[in-house]
Amino acid sequence: MAEGNRVVVYTGPGEVAVETIDYPKLEIPAEVADHFGIAKAAPHAAILKLVTTNICGSDQHMVRGRTTAPVGQSLGHEITGEVVAKGDDVLFVDEGDICSVPFNIACGRCRMCNEGHTGVCLNVNPARAGAAYGYVDMGGWIGGQAEYVMIPYADFNLLKFPDRDQALEKILDLTMLSDIFPTGYHGAYTAGVTTGSTVYVAGAGPVGLAAAHAAQLLGAAVVMVGDLNADRLKQAESFGCVGIDLSSGGELVDKIEQVVGEREVDAAVDAVGFEARGHGEGADEAPATVLNDAMTVTRAAGGIGIPGLYVTGDPGAVDDAAKEGTLGVRLGLGWAKSQHFTTGQCPVKRYNRKLMNMILHDKAQIAKAVNAQTISLDDAPRGYAEFDQGAATKYVIDPHGMVA
Amino acid sequence: MAEGNRVVVYTGPGEVAVETIDYPKLEIPAEVADHFGIAKAAPHAAILKLVTTNICGSDQHMVRGRTTAPVGQSLGHEITGEVVAKGDDVLFVDEGDICSVPFNIACGRCRMCNEGHTGVCLNVNPARAGAAYGYVDMGGWIGGQAEYVMIPYADFNLLKFPDRDQALEKILDLTMLSDIFPTGYHGAYTAGVTTGSTVYVAGAGPVGLAAAHAAQLLGAAVVMVGDLNADRLKQAESFGCVGIDLSSGGELVDKIEQVVGEREVDAAVDAVGFEARGHGEGADEAPATVLNDAMTVTRAAGGIGIPGLYVTGDPGAVDDAAKEGTLGVRLGLGWAKSQHFTTGQCPVKRYNRKLMNMILHDKAQIAKAVNAQTISLDDAPRGYAEFDQGAATKYVIDPHGMVA
Amino acid sequence: MAEGNRVVVYTGPGEVAVETIDYPKLEIPAEVADHFGIAKAAPHAAILKLVTTNICGSDQHMVRGRTTAPVGQSLGHEITGEVVAKGDDVLFVDEGDICSVPFNIACGRCRMCNEGHTGVCLNVNPARAGAAYGYVDMGGWIGGQAEYVMIPYADFNLLKFPDRDQALEKILDLTMLSDIFPTGYHGAYTAGVTTGSTVYVAGAGPVGLAAAHAAQLLGAAVVMVGDLNADRLKQAESFGCVGIDLSSGGELVDKIEQVVGEREVDAAVDAVGFEARGHGEGADEAPATVLNDAMTVTRAAGGIGIPGLYVTGDPGAVDDAAKEGTLGVRLGLGWAKSQHFTTGQCPVKRYNRKLMNMILHDKAQIAKAVNAQTISLDDAPRGYAEFDQGAATKYVIDPHGMVA
Amino acid sequence: MAEGNRVVVYTGPGEVAVETIDYPKLEIPAEVADHFGIAKAAPHAAILKLVTTNICGSDQHMVRGRTTAPVGQSLGHEITGEVVAKGDDVLFVDEGDICSVPFNIACGRCRMCNEGHTGVCLNVNPARAGAAYGYVDMGGWIGGQAEYVMIPYADFNLLKFPDRDQALEKILDLTMLSDIFPTGYHGAYTAGVTTGSTVYVAGAGPVGLAAAHAAQLLGAAVVMVGDLNADRLKQAESFGCVGIDLSSGGELVDKIEQVVGEREVDAAVDAVGFEARGHGEGADEAPATVLNDAMTVTRAAGGIGIPGLYVTGDPGAVDDAAKEGTLGVRLGLGWAKSQHFTTGQCPVKRYNRKLMNMILHDKAQIAKAVNAQTISLDDAPRGYAEFDQGAATKYVIDPHGMVA
Repeated sequence: MAEGNRVVVYTGPGEVAVETIDYPKLEIPAEVADHFGIAKAAPHAAILKLVTTNICGSDQHMVRGRTTAPVGQSLGHEITGEVVAKGDDVLFVDEGDICSVPFNIACGRCRMCNEGHTGVCLNVNPARAGAAYGYVDMGGWIGGQAEYVMIPYADFNLLKFPDRDQALEKILDLTMLSDIFPTGYHGAYTAGVTTGSTVYVAGAGPVGLAAAHAAQLLGAAVVMVGDLNADRLKQAESFGCVGIDLSSGGELVDKIEQVVGEREVDAAVDAVGFEARGHGEGADEAPATVLNDAMTVTRAAGGIGIPGLYVTGDPGAVDDAAKEGTLGVRLGLGWAKSQHFTTGQCPVKRYNRKLMNMILHDKAQIAKAVNAQTISLDDAPRGYAEFDQGAATKYVIDPHGMVA
Repeated sequence: MAEGNRVVVYTGPGEVAVETIDYPKLEIPAEVADHFGIAKAAPHAAILKLVTTNICGSDQHMVRGRTTAPVGQSLGHEITGEVVAKGDDVLFVDEGDICSVPFNIACGRCRMCNEGHTGVCLNVNPARAGAAYGYVDMGGWIGGQAEYVMIPYADFNLLKFPDRDQALEKILDLTMLSDIFPTGYHGAYTAGVTTGSTVYVAGAGPVGLAAAHAAQLLGAAVVMVGDLNADRLKQAESFGCVGIDLSSGGELVDKIEQVVGEREVDAAVDAVGFEARGHGEGADEAPATVLNDAMTVTRAAGGIGIPGLYVTGDPGAVDDAAKEGTLGVRLGLGWAKSQHFTTGQCPVKRYNRKLMNMILHDKAQIAKAVNAQTISLDDAPRGYAEFDQGAATKYVIDPHGMVA
Repeated sequence: MAEGNRVVVYTGPGEVAVETIDYPKLEIPAEVADHFGIAKAAPHAAILKLVTTNICGSDQHMVRGRTTAPVGQSLGHEITGEVVAKGDDVLFVDEGDICSVPFNIACGRCRMCNEGHTGVCLNVNPARAGAAYGYVDMGGWIGGQAEYVMIPYADFNLLKFPDRDQALEKILDLTMLSDIFPTGYHGAYTAGVTTGSTVYVAGAGPVGLAAAHAAQLLGAAVVMVGDLNADRLKQAESFGCVGIDLSSGGELVDKIEQVVGEREVDAAVDAVGFEARGHGEGADEAPATVLNDAMTVTRAAGGIGIPGLYVTGDPGAVDDAAKEGTLGVRLGLGWAKSQHFTTGQCPVKRYNRKLMNMILHDKAQIAKAVNAQTISLDDAPRGYAEFDQGAATKYVIDPHGMVA
Repeated sequence: MAEGNRVVVYTGPGEVAVETIDYPKLEIPAEVADHFGIAKAAPHAAILKLVTTNICGSDQHMVRGRTTAPVGQSLGHEITGEVVAKGDDVLFVDEGDICSVPFNIACGRCRMCNEGHTGVCLNVNPARAGAAYGYVDMGGWIGGQAEYVMIPYADFNLLKFPDRDQALEKILDLTMLSDIFPTGYHGAYTAGVTTGSTVYVAGAGPVGLAAAHAAQLLGAAVVMVGDLNADRLKQAESFGCVGIDLSSGGELVDKIEQVVGEREVDAAVDAVGFEARGHGEGADEAPATVLNDAMTVTRAAGGIGIPGLYVTGDPGAVDDAAKEGTLGVRLGLGWAKSQHFTTGQCPVKRYNRKLMNMILHDKAQIAKAVNAQTISLDDAPRGYAEFDQGAATKYVIDPHGMVA
């Protein structure tokens, strides 16, 4: 067993560092144990040695200071690792197994988990339904941009890869199963993307690109991706999507018409969330812009998937309403078009096995779609900085040098 | 054939009158024929002698002057009638058949109709997807609070009652199939109400009461209905719902907890729409209140059905944003709870046959739930006035004295 | 802790007895532990003191000698009990809680459980997917027609009743949640029963009556139940169903036409299974009769739910094909009508919470529907005998005299 | 207008010929008009000049004498054509439009059509629900392996291609929209094929190949196709499927295990139907073999789609039961695995628009998958003969030499 555990930590607005904390124990956070009146000792937990652990756009919200995350908050919820220890009630995964971990922590035993809503598990966060590793207000679970991490309810939360060598060979694809690939898929799926759909994805960051690739897998006839960032648009085009440049003038519906001959699409995905900006070079933050665009471009009776994060508290928001998560939504428009909307965190377990199969049988190329690049744990601060600058790259931390 | 046709007409803010217009022809409106490049002559149309025709809350929006309806706009979209004439291509209904008419006019031939989205038919309204009888901006179709009305695409739009005598006997129930019963059902169904659900319905007007009764039919364990109006709450309680009095102080979640022992419900229905008011006696209009309440009281991963009308233009709204249908929605809250939302007009055809079966087999008592009362055509202005005052009554016009 | 445990045991064709075995331990069966390579010690398990435990029609298959059940097989899979001991990893139920136990044993951790298919859990039975308490070839788990029983994966398998006193008061209803109420519901639900459906249920035994009551809760307009047994038909009629007497001559479609005016229904449920008999007094066993009837009476595009048990081995069957579970199915007829079929054991967890809510809010009266009668553990042999004679009764064993 | 109409006709077992009949009128068959009491004159009908019209495996059942088709039966239900005349109530397609025609004739006005079940329309066939062009017992509609054909309810039944030139360019793909592409998709879709599924398709004829390609579009991770015919297996492998050779010895489950490492798949499609043969060279007809295989190879809780035709009357069947469509189905096996089954003709309209979009955006290559080959109308007899010999070819008749 290692002496300690090195982990990425938020050290103040715009800054992260790698610090050493205690090696993980088979215990759940005290605040969770106390609140739910359950034991701290966790025979259901396992400890994973990280194989890969990715930097996520939602980590950036914290690092930019757009949340109430305290200095010292450990980071990282996109976790793939090897089981190195486990409790007495972990029966179906073994030491040496390489597994993907859904970013949502779920007990597998409550009504929400029973119904497949693992993103809003009732037993893992005193503050609300749902928890995650390394995230403010999400239960106090230690982050996984680290050397080691504790995973509770391991039999339920771990998705074991069938073959270790195959897993390591395809690890840059498989590492996306912990969050963005299922999250993008959830956005496209809940928007109703199916065989023959025309699709508009707002945002060409990693989640947007994952949603675009997922839309392809779901059978979309045409996938358009809108962004202000030329590099990210190029990335979207690299795997068969049509880039929609929002930095230039002109109406979005006109741009869509040029591609598909109609001013509307069957389904839209909001892969941007609350830090949305208006269109055009240098546009200001306009938090409901993307959602209102989605309503405008989606046909009557169409669906809109909203994996992009919206929050209940945003101290840095443009106005008082937005600070509480209240946005100016064109509800009248959506209503007139009989649209439907699905919000919230992706329940990763609903999709990760399916998407793993696609990767293992060479039917999905998500690493290529999001331009995955490995960096060392020590380089995590650089990864955060470059990603925040808009690099068209998904940063994958490789803490133990296990990635070929 | 009659000489003319008497119909209820909007004559200015707060006023309606019964006027005589031409007897209907088997023709579609010129604006529809011209826009879509199709014939005005309509072999697919039928003429109905009205048996019953109800006053709807959405008529009130026009009469209150909250829309751009011109003086002279004919009214009425809740139509039940007897076929008295039909075109050459009406094959499956016959003269003498008594039929219910969905308020949404649909061609039965476009992609939307093919997919069951008859509320947003593509071939009946030059202005947008979807049309209705007697409504502003809905295609120019003559209203059905009248003696006679023309129904296009009659084989598709008419729901024939299997037995004439039985139909006349249950007519006060069956008349609700044209709009509010399916509309309420749509609200409850799209909110996800199913066996064992706890449900909150906002609004105890006719649509709210219909949603509440529909929730019962869908298997709800508990149905609560909130309103400011004591008579309407009493009406809700008359068929087994729990009334939630919003005119008194206190938090809605506390009131819900008193009923079900939890501060949340499984599903909520917004049966109020854009003319919502805040809570408490004399509260001001607050157009997003009901929707935001619905998000507050609905559990994580729960659904919200929004049959209540929201509009793209509301000249009388409280602020500039609301005048364009942009409302302050607590999107951050809904997102944190992973909720989903379904908006828009009910596609009546999706549900009316099922609900007819329930009425004909004495499994639904919708007339009693909404307190249906018949009035003559000449009394329509009184019906409008009393309904606007908040009478806990659903007014059913009986233009030919056919109702026992 | 008690010294031993009294349990109902199969002692030969047509015979059961109450015998004393060891008090249960927090251990899984050796055959399961060995096959799956997991620990015998079960920190995930709980021991329940039985409050009620029902005799099931599928127990009768064993007792009649229609299976390969060995002498000494313990019986009982319809279990409701009080937690009296639990392992270290049982976190969300406590001693003193009264809980319903789904008859299907499920780990809550495999792909099938994750997807809601708890009837075919992959980790509980060496012989095949799916397990049950006290049943031949279902994993070797000790039966629950007993004083005490061990429940593995207790946090996952136990449905806790919210209030102990309320639970004891409604225990005759709640005891049906372990099997027949969800099983009947599954049959009706997978047959597509919804608002306004006309339904035919084949078989007025407890599962058929439960399916009939479930169909009512799902919104059926008319529920017909067919049987040869006059008492059971009377029982069906006692809660609003229409009994269809199969003991008299005449075609089933004619009898249905007399009730609903059409020769077909929207949905049918086969609540009989492989020991079906032909119609008319003294009819011989004809194992595909019920299923073929269901196809005949169900409309085009309709659904057929098949909760009735069909087996892969039936040594006492009428012919060689049937001995292997191969039956003469009128597939050509079903195909011509574009019907769909759902078979298999009900995944109880999918429905038991919903149905509990219906019972607790007085919206379901399942005990009355199936005519529940309590007997002592010592009287179990009498219960088996009377039930086998066709008593229109559901026998509920009350081993500790806890039922008022 | 042409003087007559040349059409392929069944002239006796194993024989077809091209004969001249009357040019079509805008009239429905007398037997349909009389039975339903509707007019023979059809203002809703259009006449199409055939662009392409394919030979189908289900035509072969008639030609082989395995049905009660009379000598003189006109053939052809896979129709793509240009509108050359239309009735007064055909509003949304125009002369010159090139359209695909679903093989199922549907009125668009009955309950079944309203609910999307166009394969079992209630108004088009006196004998049963559902009709087709050029088929025995399917309503007496003239076949479309012809120069011209009459299409009733044209606005409902015709799928217009958006651009004439583009349509002619992709006509060998688009011609598959009338039957086999949707039929194969229906099989895969109703079997539950989705992202990541492993799939087994029984039969590598055109429908099996279409099901296999559809499974790919639905996101299958692996698609295996079983057949006895080496050329057809090669065809399956040409677009990325794995061929499973059933002509050699060995168990199917073993062959599947070699491909996917498991003895079961997630979903299976029976694309063979009632003329199935056992495995191995020279195997006899064994009508339930394919279905029983499908149950064997499909996992617990998996689905089986059955687009392969099963009939209610088969005079040439191997035994008396089979002559009435009663087959020895291993129901016990399916039940033990909790499988579900969907049978019947594909409701083409549910899928043809989606699949058209895939073709028009180059996302589907169905012509290549089924090896489409054009022949002249005069060569139709040769096409029938070669197809019956097992040619790995889909024959597309080009009556007017319009295909490049």
